[in-house]
Amino acid sequence: MNDFDLRDATIADAGAMLALLRSVATEGDSLPFMNDVERGFIDSQWLGARGCVVAYRGDLLLGMYRYGANMPGRGSHIATATFLVAQQSRGQGVGRSLVRHSIDSARASGFRAMQFNQVLATNTAALSLYRSLGFKRVGRIPEAFAHPRDGYVTAYVMYLDLRQPRCGD
Amino acid sequence: MNDFDLRDATIADAGAMLALLRSVATEGDSLPFMNDVERGFIDSQWLGARGCVVAYRGDLLLGMYRYGANMPGRGSHIATATFLVAQQSRGQGVGRSLVRHSIDSARASGFRAMQFNQVLATNTAALSLYRSLGFKRVGRIPEAFAHPRDGYVTAYVMYLDLRQPRCGD
Repeated sequence: MNDFDLRDATIADAGAMLALLRSVATEGDSLPFMNDVERGFIDSQWLGARGCVVAYRGDLLLGMYRYGANMPGRGSHIATATFLVAQQSRGQGVGRSLVRHSIDSARASGFRAMQFNQVLATNTAALSLYRSLGFKRVGRIPEAFAHPRDGYVTAYVMYLDLRQPRCGD
Repeated sequence: MNDFDLRDATIADAGAMLALLRSVATEGDSLPFMNDVERGFIDSQWLGARGCVVAYRGDLLLGMYRYGANMPGRGSHIATATFLVAQQSRGQGVGRSLVRHSIDSARASGFRAMQFNQVLATNTAALSLYRSLGFKRVGRIPEAFAHPRDGYVTAYVMYLDLRQPRCGD
C-alpha cells in the first residue's frame, strides 16, 4: 500500500506545483527550463493539459504529472507526458504510481501509444522505470541537452504501445 | 542557376503562405494539421519564428521554410525546421535550396545541430533529400501519423550535426 494519494490537480495546487517544477528544473536531468518558469506556465501547460495529477502525502506535494496529445491533428493519437518527483520523495514508488496512472488514463482516453520525446541518458531512474513498464527506446538524440554538470548529453525517445497489456505490475 | 529567389518572408506574404500551408496539409504526408489552420498560425508560428524564408518565381510562391530552437533552455542549441513546397513546384530544386538555406542560417546562428522530429516514411522525397544533405536517422516512431490514405504510418527522427562540413553540394 502506498501512503500517498493521487488526485486531479486544481488551481489551489498551483503554488506548490510551481515550486516543485522550479526545483526539479534546477537539477537539469529532465526539464529543459532554466530560471525562467513562471506561474502562467503552470496554469496553461499543466492545469490546462488534457490531464494533470498530483501525489500528496498529507499536505505535502510529492510529485505530479501532466499528459496530453504529443502532436495535433494526424499525430494526436499518441500521448506524451511529463513527470516530476520532489528530490526528498524519490525511491518511494511515487514516480511508478504516477507513470502507471498516466498510462491508464491515456489508454482509457483512447490514445494508441505514449511517447516521451527526450529522456536524458543521465536520468537513469526514469529510464529504468519506463523500461520496467514496457517502454521501448525508439530514438537516440546526440547532445540533446546542455546538462549543468555533464555538458551535452544524449537523450532517448521512449515509446509504449498502449494497445498491449500493461507491463510491470 | 535557379530561376527562383529566396528571401525573408514578410507580412505581405502571409496570405499566400496560408494557402500553401493548407494545400500541403491536405496531402497528409508532412504536416499534422487537418482543416484547422488559421491565419494567426502563420503570424505566430511562421512569421514569428527565428527565421522564415520564402521562395518565389516572379510573384508565385513556390515554397517556404521556418526554423528555430527545437526545445527551450537546455535544449535550445538544436534547431528544427519545417519545409513546404507547392505541389506544382516539386522536382525543381526548390526544396533542396530551402533546406540548404536553413542549414546555413542555423549554423550561422550558432546552433549545434538540426533535428526533424517527425518525417513520415511516406514522404520519400523529403527523406532522400535530407539524407543527401547529411541528415542521419536517429529515431523511428511507429504509427506516428494517421495518413489519409495509408493509415497509421511510421515517422523518422532525422538529425544533422551542424559542426560538420556541409554535405551534398
